[in-house]
Amino acid sequence: MSNQQNEKNLLPKKTGDLSDWYVAINRLADLSDYGPAKGTMIFKPYGYAIWENIQRALDDLFKEHGVENAYFPMLFPMSYLEREKDHVDGFSPELAVVTHGGGEKLEEPLVVRPTSESIMYDYYAKWTQSWRDLPILINQWNNIVRWEKRTMPFIRTSEFLWQEGHTAHATAREALDTQKWAMDVYRKVYREVLAIDGYSGLKSAAERFAGAEETLTFETMMPSMKALQSCTSHYFGQKMARAFNLVFQNQAGDDEYAYQTSWGFSTRSIGGLILAHGDDNGLRLPPRVAPIQVVIVPVKTDDEVLAEGRKIFDELKKAGVRVKFDERDYERFGYKLNDWEVKGVPVIIKLGAKEITDGVVSYRRRDTLSDGQYKRAGVASKIIKLIDTIQADMLTESVKFRDENTYDAADYDEFKRIMADRSGFIKVHWNEDTDIEMKIKEETKATTRCKLAEQSDGVDFYTGQPAKDIWLFAQSY
Amino acid sequence: MSNQQNEKNLLPKKTGDLSDWYVAINRLADLSDYGPAKGTMIFKPYGYAIWENIQRALDDLFKEHGVENAYFPMLFPMSYLEREKDHVDGFSPELAVVTHGGGEKLEEPLVVRPTSESIMYDYYAKWTQSWRDLPILINQWNNIVRWEKRTMPFIRTSEFLWQEGHTAHATAREALDTQKWAMDVYRKVYREVLAIDGYSGLKSAAERFAGAEETLTFETMMPSMKALQSCTSHYFGQKMARAFNLVFQNQAGDDEYAYQTSWGFSTRSIGGLILAHGDDNGLRLPPRVAPIQVVIVPVKTDDEVLAEGRKIFDELKKAGVRVKFDERDYERFGYKLNDWEVKGVPVIIKLGAKEITDGVVSYRRRDTLSDGQYKRAGVASKIIKLIDTIQADMLTESVKFRDENTYDAADYDEFKRIMADRSGFIKVHWNEDTDIEMKIKEETKATTRCKLAEQSDGVDFYTGQPAKDIWLFAQSY
Repeated sequence: MSNQQNEKNLLPKKTGDLSDWYVAINRLADLSDYGPAKGTMIFKPYGYAIWENIQRALDDLFKEHGVENAYFPMLFPMSYLEREKDHVDGFSPELAVVTHGGGEKLEEPLVVRPTSESIMYDYYAKWTQSWRDLPILINQWNNIVRWEKRTMPFIRTSEFLWQEGHTAHATAREALDTQKWAMDVYRKVYREVLAIDGYSGLKSAAERFAGAEETLTFETMMPSMKALQSCTSHYFGQKMARAFNLVFQNQAGDDEYAYQTSWGFSTRSIGGLILAHGDDNGLRLPPRVAPIQVVIVPVKTDDEVLAEGRKIFDELKKAGVRVKFDERDYERFGYKLNDWEVKGVPVIIKLGAKEITDGVVSYRRRDTLSDGQYKRAGVASKIIKLIDTIQADMLTESVKFRDENTYDAADYDEFKRIMADRSGFIKVHWNEDTDIEMKIKEETKATTRCKLAEQSDGVDFYTGQPAKDIWLFAQSY
Repeated sequence: MSNQQNEKNLLPKKTGDLSDWYVAINRLADLSDYGPAKGTMIFKPYGYAIWENIQRALDDLFKEHGVENAYFPMLFPMSYLEREKDHVDGFSPELAVVTHGGGEKLEEPLVVRPTSESIMYDYYAKWTQSWRDLPILINQWNNIVRWEKRTMPFIRTSEFLWQEGHTAHATAREALDTQKWAMDVYRKVYREVLAIDGYSGLKSAAERFAGAEETLTFETMMPSMKALQSCTSHYFGQKMARAFNLVFQNQAGDDEYAYQTSWGFSTRSIGGLILAHGDDNGLRLPPRVAPIQVVIVPVKTDDEVLAEGRKIFDELKKAGVRVKFDERDYERFGYKLNDWEVKGVPVIIKLGAKEITDGVVSYRRRDTLSDGQYKRAGVASKIIKLIDTIQADMLTESVKFRDENTYDAADYDEFKRIMADRSGFIKVHWNEDTDIEMKIKEETKATTRCKLAEQSDGVDFYTGQPAKDIWLFAQSY
């Protein structure tokens, strides 16, 4: 909130200790605060508004595809999770358990959902008789609790917000298409809204979701040179359907287990956004996800400037821009300018008497920190073009960053050297082998991030044998 | 989901046992299902879509007023609630408690939020130094757990969804205005979106929110002749600020406690909607809250009819109508017609070869069950007018129902007679007295619902003394 000091000086360099910078930016840009219970966090209005923009983008794409929203109880008996062995094994260590309700000890303790497959699929089974009841395409926007020891705001917290889509289909083909569709939606939102590119592909058997037959992931590189698993989409085959007895009568009249998918996109994405785009001056928000796309900052708050500021505000608002007019008269111009830079507003309009005399609008692009001027007449359409340019430029930057930090390693020695010297993504020809994967993890802290779609015609970097696939390794959050 | 039987026959009469009807309509209209843990429920897609329409209406009005959304942790230490005595006394009996996390017993048990005053205001205190930091206008959309013994889908469940707005102000005037503004927003949404009218006014000391100095409520009459407390808006004065040390430096440079409000609107409103508007044929949804405003049902699914149906669908969709085309070829026309009547879709278009030949569109209004025809040309604008008419007519009906079930009682004998014979709202001249209130509750099950804004110039119905105020009594959910 208000602060008479120049907060810029309090922001450590991003190129210094990244954790210090991350903690400071969360506070100075008013994104989050720490909750009282271990690992919980508060999404402050400015941080939450970023989430609302992400939600809108995803929700529109889900609905376009025929996905419907619903809501399932957050508390359910432990026995639900236990229906599928791999699933319960994956989530048991992270559970929060309610043992008392209404002043009494509960007969059966309830878990706080760590994910909703188990409760949802029990109902899917109850609701499904024939192929006519399929597909089921349901999404939930909700809160999730997974008890975490090492936490980091947005990136890893004991309670987080997400959407979880859960579908059931009459054929494997349709389920696999849906798994892929969800990942395509995610990648589109990462690229076009968050201006972040990465790699998508299948997870290894060791890294995939507890209970899934296949997991698609989207992996992005952070300036720490650690990869962030940014969202995932799972294919369960008939495995969950077997566990929950989700049977339908197919068109031939036979009973068959349904084919299923689930896919999730969480508030972790906001952590990725902060890390990927921030700089020494604070946050840098791509316009499509920015709560405020343009802020107008008067050099002095005299009547003439305020009147002109309100005019520009009205024009931009009418044109559909998310615009704010900073009319605070108790803060200096320099403080306000810095405040909006720290908050990463894409376009800052600096409005003084000179601009009015000259019939121009002076602006600063937050992404490049470069200053420019437009003629006053028809300024709204120019600002809208500028917003589009910034959005595109920030994605280009992200692609460049990803590519510059992706290395090829011909053999394990080169792999180890790169991982020790520069880290980043390492792309290798490799045949999946869990023992080798574990050994590499132990020796280099690097794990498989995903298998790329391209086929390999090269030599396995670890064994020297002909390799089938191309994999990405990296250290990760 | 699909069902070859004629489900209409399974729906009990609303005028018979209302609980039976309510349970049946929830199932047959695909609104909800029972959760596995006591008192929990599933919001099925059709029921949840109603909530999404309510959310959008409220959220737009909040944002227009400058309220920002945020998210606070669901789990927090019990000690937070204990900071304000009345508040903890009110909520203690309903708490769900997490005692274990990540496989270990927690040092301090955590409560699942029954409401968020206590955690939010602790942070408001931390974030506030001067009058410049005020007002704080924050809203949350989240889930709440209050352990309930007697539950009823939507109306009273152990977990429910709502929004909770929480504000802090530099003056009592501003806080009181905000409390009133929130109730005005709620009443507007009830009237204009849900087409339900009721009475708003202040709660008695015995009925107000735990910890509040004043509670405004909106009370609606259900066909059971019980009132439903439909949403509330609270003024805390400086009471909460004292408990949480929410102090600001005012413009004179002195420390002062902030003035606060909170206000909530929950998924209980969907229960009210079902009860208020449903009839013997199922649900009746006002168009503004209906997930589907118009459904096109082909008499036969032959090519000509399907092609025409798609044309009408496209025209309505383009005009901004939430329209569905029921192309299912495996269900009979009669079944489908009944299905949409049960689901309460405001306008059902019945499309056969005859309509195409005659160049007309046949429709049924769900609210009145009356049939009509429009000329085919320019049908979209006529349907939009029809939708507005239905919305207005349903509100008129609700006002009439409220007025017809509001009685005056000159003395306590008449009061008891009305309450025994007809129930409903009873309007009386009365001076608030908690002992009398408790006695009336014991003898008639009726409680004060609210004090109306009008002043009394009459005689207290209980004591015969000159009365200051006019109060509404009713039995309630």
